[in-house]
Amino acid sequence: MTDAQLRVGERIDGLPSQQIKIIQNPDMFSYSLDAVLLAYFAKPKQRGRGLSVDLGAGTGAIGLFYAAKTTGTVKLVELQKDLAEMAARSVALNDLNDRVSVLNSDMQEIFDEIKPGSVDTVLSNPPYFSVNETTKQNLDEHYQLARHEIAIDLPRLAQVANKLLKNNGKFYLVHRPDRLNDIMAALAARKLEIKRIQFVYGKEGREANMVLVEAIKGGRPGGVRILPPIIAYTDNDDYTDQVQEILYGSAWQD
Amino acid sequence: MTDAQLRVGERIDGLPSQQIKIIQNPDMFSYSLDAVLLAYFAKPKQRGRGLSVDLGAGTGAIGLFYAAKTTGTVKLVELQKDLAEMAARSVALNDLNDRVSVLNSDMQEIFDEIKPGSVDTVLSNPPYFSVNETTKQNLDEHYQLARHEIAIDLPRLAQVANKLLKNNGKFYLVHRPDRLNDIMAALAARKLEIKRIQFVYGKEGREANMVLVEAIKGGRPGGVRILPPIIAYTDNDDYTDQVQEILYGSAWQD
Repeated sequence: MTDAQLRVGERIDGLPSQQIKIIQNPDMFSYSLDAVLLAYFAKPKQRGRGLSVDLGAGTGAIGLFYAAKTTGTVKLVELQKDLAEMAARSVALNDLNDRVSVLNSDMQEIFDEIKPGSVDTVLSNPPYFSVNETTKQNLDEHYQLARHEIAIDLPRLAQVANKLLKNNGKFYLVHRPDRLNDIMAALAARKLEIKRIQFVYGKEGREANMVLVEAIKGGRPGGVRILPPIIAYTDNDDYTDQVQEILYGSAWQD
Repeated sequence: MTDAQLRVGERIDGLPSQQIKIIQNPDMFSYSLDAVLLAYFAKPKQRGRGLSVDLGAGTGAIGLFYAAKTTGTVKLVELQKDLAEMAARSVALNDLNDRVSVLNSDMQEIFDEIKPGSVDTVLSNPPYFSVNETTKQNLDEHYQLARHEIAIDLPRLAQVANKLLKNNGKFYLVHRPDRLNDIMAALAARKLEIKRIQFVYGKEGREANMVLVEAIKGGRPGGVRILPPIIAYTDNDDYTDQVQEILYGSAWQD
């Protein structure tokens, strides 16, 4: 792909450590550190050969970063047509058409295309904010659908993940810590047993602003592990060594 | 109190930063960093003048450390007679008889002595381990009652805390992170809304081995804050500066 193939307002961002490039449009919705860290946090099943699904894939960042650490099939499900189309061009840009595909669909109506009980790993970076009347009235579509629980909320996301996953399949979620109660209740209600949690703190001494969650469908209750904290930035607003390793280094080989 | 007043096998430990001394018997049950950190984490209500209760007080460490940052009344509830008696001697040792008292009682039968709905703050360092048939059969009373959910479990503890607390009263809990699902379910079932969580990590790069929880009775759902991580020890097995400040320094004045 040459720059000429980029549409107006688009740019290409990438994850150097995984040699993946993502087409972005800052006017619509851009991936952020959340996507990188979720892909990093997720552990492929089946030695990386299984079927993985990214629910609410946006521009495909999580699914493509994750694809780079597997050899299996990855399906990106995205409701918004132009985001799905950008994701499909990013798949091509990374020469991953043979095993990564994009489904432009409501995740709740995906079961003709992805058979219930067939998926090893589900990943999702869902909308972070619950909906109230104010947010409903003031819609800027791309942004709002990605940020607010308009098209999907936590209980319905958990329901879709549960339905797609095999028994013992894994569900990976990145979200805001202030929704922790909701996350735990929604997952527990769908027998998605939380097994690992990792909190991300913007800087040392600050409260966490991101949470990474791993749950197992039908897993044994209890035994949650809280992984070491990730601190994102130094006091000088540079990425910490820990995050630089993930963005530019060899941390993914661990 | 002189050394002669200590019984055989007992010793006096203390929290220098709070100038509190605790009579301990290593053969029975000793407080540990958990108690110090919970007392530090808890924020007194009513400018420190309210009624606070320590459920399952053991030797009284949490209640006494916490009493040092209040001017109100603190009641220590302990089921085991000899631990309650040691706690009472520690209260006297610290000259706190005027506002700290010990109740040797099952916390589930405390409502004649402490009126339901009368308490501003409940603190608890409950047994960490759930009971299975193996643990039941092999009882060493002091140790087992303090460590295993024999006399009290999380759902019943949450029920007692809910019943004692005023509306908007606070419940402080220290526990193991691997019980996080159980903690959140038990508290949610009793309308104890979790508001602040702080994880304690043994060393940098290790998983959390302790969790501090603040919940508000009848609080608005959502908005959990995950406080900055506490790292307990350096790689050389010394306390970190952060913990030394709590044990010996002026951190409590914050």
